[in-house]
Amino acid sequence: MSLSEDGILDRDKAVFEAGIKLGALYHQFIGTPVNTETVAELEKAIEKSVSIQPCVSFVDVKIDRGKMRENPFKYCELSGDMLDVKVVVLYNEKVKVYARVRYEEEMGYPLMRIEKVSMFG
Amino acid sequence: MSLSEDGILDRDKAVFEAGIKLGALYHQFIGTPVNTETVAELEKAIEKSVSIQPCVSFVDVKIDRGKMRENPFKYCELSGDMLDVKVVVLYNEKVKVYARVRYEEEMGYPLMRIEKVSMFG
Amino acid sequence: MSLSEDGILDRDKAVFEAGIKLGALYHQFIGTPVNTETVAELEKAIEKSVSIQPCVSFVDVKIDRGKMRENPFKYCELSGDMLDVKVVVLYNEKVKVYARVRYEEEMGYPLMRIEKVSMFG
Amino acid sequence: MSLSEDGILDRDKAVFEAGIKLGALYHQFIGTPVNTETVAELEKAIEKSVSIQPCVSFVDVKIDRGKMRENPFKYCELSGDMLDVKVVVLYNEKVKVYARVRYEEEMGYPLMRIEKVSMFG
Repeated sequence: MSLSEDGILDRDKAVFEAGIKLGALYHQFIGTPVNTETVAELEKAIEKSVSIQPCVSFVDVKIDRGKMRENPFKYCELSGDMLDVKVVVLYNEKVKVYARVRYEEEMGYPLMRIEKVSMFG
Repeated sequence: MSLSEDGILDRDKAVFEAGIKLGALYHQFIGTPVNTETVAELEKAIEKSVSIQPCVSFVDVKIDRGKMRENPFKYCELSGDMLDVKVVVLYNEKVKVYARVRYEEEMGYPLMRIEKVSMFG
Repeated sequence: MSLSEDGILDRDKAVFEAGIKLGALYHQFIGTPVNTETVAELEKAIEKSVSIQPCVSFVDVKIDRGKMRENPFKYCELSGDMLDVKVVVLYNEKVKVYARVRYEEEMGYPLMRIEKVSMFG
Repeated sequence: MSLSEDGILDRDKAVFEAGIKLGALYHQFIGTPVNTETVAELEKAIEKSVSIQPCVSFVDVKIDRGKMRENPFKYCELSGDMLDVKVVVLYNEKVKVYARVRYEEEMGYPLMRIEKVSMFG
């Protein structure tokens, strides 16, 4: 693990990028009107919006249909407890970070966490 | 044009709903990462999210490709000057409102306006 | 109530503006991290952001402290069930619209509605 | 630098948290209506919303008044080129991360970066 001049590692940058992606998508899309007929479309749109950002090599967005309690007008708002998003960041072809946001029922919190860091070369 | 007990007309409600839709979609989706490869998907996702809200009978979202100035990472953020959205609201099968948000170059402003109100019956 | 050339009334425009404001603030601020120590600040910031938009003559934002269920990290996200916002729009010094978004418990929905329309002159 | 069971370092977690904060605030607040009279209030509200999130030990939000080109209605929307935000994350009382988002003119991009990582003990 070599240090750059400023003491920031490639590994740091990789993990940092993963954090940015999760924070960004969460606060961009929470509140979006959605129902069972449009949820697949929304999943795909979120995936696309993440996939084009720097260093993203994989993204998978799942919105839990079972959590979607539709209001009297037959839709609901995307909320943190519905989300399960996996993002893989590849930085400088050297570091791969697997990150995820998923609602933890017992905490009552959409926890963002690093699942794995892989170093190459 | 008959007044309801509280003095609010069906026409008022129709126009109000149209305003809600435009304000909502604008502030929900502005800032979304997008590029030429994902823009069609984003248009569709915005349309879907609007179409499921109360009283919406039609929605068309166009994002101006010519305004998308991609950053060094080959994407940009959805901004008001790219948007042209038409929404038609039908209230109580009596009032139809055609509303639109489109960037007015000379004003430098994404103006939301009512284009037409039609009354039935 | 005189018709403009295009058949759009001042009253329509007033009501439309009120709808825009509610839709906009809702989707701008839902998801914002907040707790009991910062909630007054957030109320004020939302009020300010609405007050500077066209035709707004009054805005009052109340976030229900009783609905704020803090997560293990001692904060929560602003959600629709916490909001009670009143906006008054004055259009062309002729029409005043009192609008509001408030969570309706029995509907399970943050209902936006017109409370009153006043005509002058 | 000791590895936890799952191979994730405290340092990783610290840097990850910093990334989350920047991504989150950016996509939460971009698009907020603001003018010279309300900008100080908005800066404070963003600071508060970040400061209450896990591991944040310092946050400073500056919105560049010089970039605020007001529209005909005397306000504008918060955009990435106006923002300069510094966040300091302290993780587990062992790692301190100094991160920042600031618009890079030559890139035309609101770059998020790690400025420093300090390890204790």
